[in-house]
Amino acid sequence: MKIAGISGSLRKHSIHRGVLQSVAENLATKGVEFTEVEIGDFPLYNQDDNAQGLPTCVLRAHQKLAEADAIVLASPEYNYSVSGVLKNAIDWLSRVENQAFSGKAVSIMGASPGLGTARSQYHLRQILVFLNAFVVNKPEVMITQAMSKFDQQGHLIDANTIEFLDKATTSLIQLSKQLKK
Amino acid sequence: MKIAGISGSLRKHSIHRGVLQSVAENLATKGVEFTEVEIGDFPLYNQDDNAQGLPTCVLRAHQKLAEADAIVLASPEYNYSVSGVLKNAIDWLSRVENQAFSGKAVSIMGASPGLGTARSQYHLRQILVFLNAFVVNKPEVMITQAMSKFDQQGHLIDANTIEFLDKATTSLIQLSKQLKK
Amino acid sequence: MKIAGISGSLRKHSIHRGVLQSVAENLATKGVEFTEVEIGDFPLYNQDDNAQGLPTCVLRAHQKLAEADAIVLASPEYNYSVSGVLKNAIDWLSRVENQAFSGKAVSIMGASPGLGTARSQYHLRQILVFLNAFVVNKPEVMITQAMSKFDQQGHLIDANTIEFLDKATTSLIQLSKQLKK
Amino acid sequence: MKIAGISGSLRKHSIHRGVLQSVAENLATKGVEFTEVEIGDFPLYNQDDNAQGLPTCVLRAHQKLAEADAIVLASPEYNYSVSGVLKNAIDWLSRVENQAFSGKAVSIMGASPGLGTARSQYHLRQILVFLNAFVVNKPEVMITQAMSKFDQQGHLIDANTIEFLDKATTSLIQLSKQLKK
Repeated sequence: MKIAGISGSLRKHSIHRGVLQSVAENLATKGVEFTEVEIGDFPLYNQDDNAQGLPTCVLRAHQKLAEADAIVLASPEYNYSVSGVLKNAIDWLSRVENQAFSGKAVSIMGASPGLGTARSQYHLRQILVFLNAFVVNKPEVMITQAMSKFDQQGHLIDANTIEFLDKATTSLIQLSKQLKK
Repeated sequence: MKIAGISGSLRKHSIHRGVLQSVAENLATKGVEFTEVEIGDFPLYNQDDNAQGLPTCVLRAHQKLAEADAIVLASPEYNYSVSGVLKNAIDWLSRVENQAFSGKAVSIMGASPGLGTARSQYHLRQILVFLNAFVVNKPEVMITQAMSKFDQQGHLIDANTIEFLDKATTSLIQLSKQLKK
Repeated sequence: MKIAGISGSLRKHSIHRGVLQSVAENLATKGVEFTEVEIGDFPLYNQDDNAQGLPTCVLRAHQKLAEADAIVLASPEYNYSVSGVLKNAIDWLSRVENQAFSGKAVSIMGASPGLGTARSQYHLRQILVFLNAFVVNKPEVMITQAMSKFDQQGHLIDANTIEFLDKATTSLIQLSKQLKK
Repeated sequence: MKIAGISGSLRKHSIHRGVLQSVAENLATKGVEFTEVEIGDFPLYNQDDNAQGLPTCVLRAHQKLAEADAIVLASPEYNYSVSGVLKNAIDWLSRVENQAFSGKAVSIMGASPGLGTARSQYHLRQILVFLNAFVVNKPEVMITQAMSKFDQQGHLIDANTIEFLDKATTSLIQLSKQLKK
């Protein structure tokens, strides 16, 4: 089993990259391979450009997602919704013919000082209806009081949260197995 | 009175640019100046870059919005939500200290072959809560069956819709006047 | 396999009862038993009453849902959201210890003169996250121009829509089978 | 100026009634009259009954809302959305010809142990678009850790929250004044 992840923040020391790193470490203990898919080199979506074929960076990212059995989307909440960066990536990725999300299990994860990105996660769920993905319901990963749970390099250092992510990846793997049958 | 507009599509002949053009023509008959604000040259939002000051293109766009009394957001719906391009622009614009949207009236407009971008408009409304803008309730501008209402260059050519936009700008102007008192 | 359905309208000749009837007829051809679950005798939810035990009508409805492998929710959209009647039923049903929706496949169906209850369906999807149900993504059943597709008794008489419901029940059955593994 | 309020919980000692009581006390210091509008005697909405005229309890509640300059909706979040009880009330109230919410300022308030009813508040905002009401953006009243802020009778006893409600009513009064011009 392979799982791919996208960070909705491009920051080098983003806590959402930290979440993905922690997920990767956890998945390794379960014998599951994890790949982070970069979206920082995508251009802004423009359908005029699209006419000349999709950018190589988009096709490369899509390929990694297509090869994955399940997907983790770790995104900050900006302005009460999904980051524009992640949405822009999804707008490009959805133009590739062989849909990378379709029929797959997805886990949404977010961390913030306040409500743990709750507001944005239901927007992302609506987006994923169009992409025909199925999002894990329990547990929802909304990491509150993030400032105290990550170090300066964005690494997740809170033991309870790390344990919680273990439950999240277990749910993701289980849902993915169910959907493949 | 001045009104600024943003197209959530970067396409040259976008029907959402066509909507803004039609709005501009209508506002001219009411003695209201209209400016389209470009967001196609914004980089993808990255908080690391932000540390060195906001990009000039962001500050220029923000300035135009700040000078406007009210704002029109005309955006396609991609993947059941706001275009990533528009969201990316909002993520940048919201980082400028003197908030350009705060306390202002906004009109959301969209056109599509199907539901007229209905799904995305409620996401945009939630985003605008954070920005402290007040969105016109009536009429909602959801232009369905768009293929027959715009020409190949994206110009709005449907008489009923043009008349409908007249009601929309009247509502926007009225709400803007109320909020300024 | 057994499927249970709830109409979010209490009207005798409701088109949403008509949708359920059409679903029942379709499921019969697939050898699947269908039961409509009544919620019209539920009291308004009041946690004070709850202290004395749940009402018999709630427990009876819950039992039928618990015995079902999958669930159809057919609801009108009132005031841009789920009908209060359906939401009241869900508020009661969620208080029964052995959760009737948890882990099950659900199909949301709606009909209206306008957007086919689109706005309400994403609210219902958010509600179903809490209930740990998994909602069919494709097809979404949003029956537009409903006035011409149902007769005066609320029976669905439009051949294309009847055929479309066949796809919807097939998707529901498939998702239900996947989730049970 | 008169303000009316509805509690989305029917519980006698509901903390949402407690919120309204605290709002009433605060408004009294500002010379604003407050009325709580009861919705616990409404029947479940049924359009068949509607044909014989609206129930007296609905008309009475509507009258109080119609006489108010602004409205407070204090509701618990059940199953990630507005309480069915409040939604049922809105479904009835919206059938009265002279719309009680239209053009008015509304403040949404909620309290819970978790996210302070955040998830339900954006649903309520969407509902209020249809009703043509304008919801206060700042501050949003999402009272977290509610268990420690109310006493056993549901009275709000937390000084910081009481002070916060003062800001909320000030915003509501201001928006109401703007919209009436």
